[in-house]
Amino acid sequence: MNFRIIWRTVGMVLLIEAALMLLPVVTALFYGESPLPFLITLGATALIGFAMSRVQTRRTVFTAREGFLIVGISWVLMSLAAAVPFVLSGDIPNYLNALFETVSGLTTTGATILSDVESLSRACQFWRLFSHWIGGMGILVFFMAVLPLAGEHSMHIMRAEVPGPVVGKLVPRAKETARILYIIYFAMTVVETVLLALGGMPVFDSMLHAFATAGTGGFSTRALSIGAYHSAYIDMVSGTFMLLFGVNLSLYYLVLVGSWRDALKNEELHWYAAIVAAAVALIAANLSGLYGGFGHALRYAYFQVASIITTTGFSTADFTQWPAFSQTMLVLLMFVGGCAGSTAGALKVSRVAILCKNALTELRRMLRPRSVVSARLDGKVVQPATVRAVLGYFFLYLLLLLLGTLIVSLDGQDFTTNFTATLACLSNVGPGLSLVGPMGNFDLFSPLSKIVLILEMLLGRLEIYPILLLFHPASWRTK
Amino acid sequence: MNFRIIWRTVGMVLLIEAALMLLPVVTALFYGESPLPFLITLGATALIGFAMSRVQTRRTVFTAREGFLIVGISWVLMSLAAAVPFVLSGDIPNYLNALFETVSGLTTTGATILSDVESLSRACQFWRLFSHWIGGMGILVFFMAVLPLAGEHSMHIMRAEVPGPVVGKLVPRAKETARILYIIYFAMTVVETVLLALGGMPVFDSMLHAFATAGTGGFSTRALSIGAYHSAYIDMVSGTFMLLFGVNLSLYYLVLVGSWRDALKNEELHWYAAIVAAAVALIAANLSGLYGGFGHALRYAYFQVASIITTTGFSTADFTQWPAFSQTMLVLLMFVGGCAGSTAGALKVSRVAILCKNALTELRRMLRPRSVVSARLDGKVVQPATVRAVLGYFFLYLLLLLLGTLIVSLDGQDFTTNFTATLACLSNVGPGLSLVGPMGNFDLFSPLSKIVLILEMLLGRLEIYPILLLFHPASWRTK
Repeated sequence: MNFRIIWRTVGMVLLIEAALMLLPVVTALFYGESPLPFLITLGATALIGFAMSRVQTRRTVFTAREGFLIVGISWVLMSLAAAVPFVLSGDIPNYLNALFETVSGLTTTGATILSDVESLSRACQFWRLFSHWIGGMGILVFFMAVLPLAGEHSMHIMRAEVPGPVVGKLVPRAKETARILYIIYFAMTVVETVLLALGGMPVFDSMLHAFATAGTGGFSTRALSIGAYHSAYIDMVSGTFMLLFGVNLSLYYLVLVGSWRDALKNEELHWYAAIVAAAVALIAANLSGLYGGFGHALRYAYFQVASIITTTGFSTADFTQWPAFSQTMLVLLMFVGGCAGSTAGALKVSRVAILCKNALTELRRMLRPRSVVSARLDGKVVQPATVRAVLGYFFLYLLLLLLGTLIVSLDGQDFTTNFTATLACLSNVGPGLSLVGPMGNFDLFSPLSKIVLILEMLLGRLEIYPILLLFHPASWRTK
Repeated sequence: MNFRIIWRTVGMVLLIEAALMLLPVVTALFYGESPLPFLITLGATALIGFAMSRVQTRRTVFTAREGFLIVGISWVLMSLAAAVPFVLSGDIPNYLNALFETVSGLTTTGATILSDVESLSRACQFWRLFSHWIGGMGILVFFMAVLPLAGEHSMHIMRAEVPGPVVGKLVPRAKETARILYIIYFAMTVVETVLLALGGMPVFDSMLHAFATAGTGGFSTRALSIGAYHSAYIDMVSGTFMLLFGVNLSLYYLVLVGSWRDALKNEELHWYAAIVAAAVALIAANLSGLYGGFGHALRYAYFQVASIITTTGFSTADFTQWPAFSQTMLVLLMFVGGCAGSTAGALKVSRVAILCKNALTELRRMLRPRSVVSARLDGKVVQPATVRAVLGYFFLYLLLLLLGTLIVSLDGQDFTTNFTATLACLSNVGPGLSLVGPMGNFDLFSPLSKIVLILEMLLGRLEIYPILLLFHPASWRTK
């Protein structure tokens, strides 16, 4: 393990973070608030980042292992720094609460410990929702897009930070790939901001909600989330953009270069569309009594399905009051998540597809023990190593979910609260059921539970290994 | 697919079932009840079984596929027949309820739809608890032990009916293996009966509870289950026997032939002991406030951990009133189950061990991508095919759990009830949390939910594939 290159890279990440803090400083100045909380944090982060980035090393490439560690350490330090302005501004006086809120922002979870979200200063509000935008694509991918990184080894970082079982490059150079993805991401955010503002949402709110949608985060400036705007148009725009940000962003690149046929042939997209359609239909049917007809129920079902499967977590209704079947459907969607290569969390549709196809293959193997059958995705055989990695990931996911639920249960809340709170954090959804529904918040948990849930959010966002490796003694050996 | 050999074998299974119905007939006569409900069912089952067993076929061996189908079909027909006496006697007038109770018995689940269990006739009570004993080891294994079966292909049946990822033979001939296992099973049941009776439990109850313990079933003749006897001695005896029946029965054979060192070296046994010890300690600590001290709490913790990990389901306390942490621990144990080759349900300790070891291996692979590392059990490398099968099994298990929970949620009960009811049925535990706790019962569910839960019980007992294959069109093609 070469720690020099790790510290050096992490230092540069902190420098970028410090630069991004200029935006809330501008926001504070614009709205006549004190920019000091952000200026102080910015200065300290820049100083530490600068010192670390001066570490000298002759090496310029890194191994897969070092890539994982860079991502894991970067995210932890980034979160620790980003939480400080909330404390300094007095908006969230308790540092652990501020850290919970920050990690929830950066991991695009959207679970909040705030009971009165509308009383925050504009600058903190901006920082809170902008963190979804940063965390959605990943600050290291951003780093790759804007800074010169030597060699193709930077793919190790992209693999560790971009969600999904397989990460491909759009163009031969990883740097170009990262840049293209960020341009698409930025452009879509701008379009959504404009569309929301056209629907009558204030421009500041429109921009912030577009950030939160793009990162599939789920924080809102309003206590009632998107429901506060009471507009079918805004529901429809934000619901549709959630679904769009849940698609593999590479597919938009294919569309841009004219290969829209290839984009539409993508099998993960078909699964995604089918799951969304089925879930919307089932929930709308289940809700038609509550909302007086299938048509009206459709609006709420569409929005909530889009919000949960993309692990955004916005709400237009308190779904803890929905019938048990609809609530259970939402829990199932919390496991699925969006497409690989999107900003969505949870298992990802492609993993679910591989798991289901492999189960069918196993069944066929039982029927004909000597036949050679393999699961296929996009017409190609899924390699045994991929199947095994996906299956192993699924087990780890469930293990982390159950262990988290167990520790959180020490607080004495009911099983549904503990289970869905942990699932909503691990899958980066945000709200769960029972006490942690859209109208509840996570402040009811003890400090221990909050720490566990912070870890679950980081584990979920970085797909387990970069965070788990931080706890592995071998990661910290010099040789 | 050779259906002739399938029908022929299933016919012989029904003949054995008819013979076993002589026991409740004797019970009815002994207690002065009408033996007619059992005599009628016995006659009809024998007739159908006899007709089926006369199907002529030249083949005497069967394939793995046919083995699975024989087991799946046998269990379904066996259950359909065994439910009839409950209806004819008027003890459970509704056939679907009777079928639920019967499948719960044969699959050694122990989930009941009865609200007044103590009002049953003696003969039905006997049949209800004896079904645990039949289902625990498996009627087809019994069949192999007592009837001449051609060739070694009967191992296919044993593999399909005996729980666990790998089934080995103790002695070269499968028939002998089955016979040895049944002798051990029978002897242990007798010893437990005597020990319970010595503790003051009525002889009839002692025998029936020993049946239920041996099969790790969980039905009781008393509404308060084992708690009704208010005896620390009886708690200790039944708790310990539950744990003993959760051990791979082959290990007792090793002890009998003098290789007790080999038996003690068994790694699954170590995992089992460690999980039990840890769970008992944690739950006792969590309960010490409730029961006024660690010592007293230990008694209840020991009994309930033994009952849940072995998927028996007896209770000495209403654990839905326990703190959330203890309840969550029990839910975790519901996933684990006993050792492979025991009568316990759920995933089995060896599968959990393989899943955990493989997760560590994957982590090591991440750290050193080029190194060759494999999980080991009992000092031997776990074959990739086994790892893959275990991982695939785990996914199917979770999928069946979540789909079951979804359908059951249509009834509108709370999430904890639906989730733990489905888990308790799939893992063959019996009681769950919330409304289906030890003091609750499963009659609150709709007919559709009961059918789903019946399927979950069968899927869990036969480890998914024999039941799933019944729904696969290819199973029913002649060629």
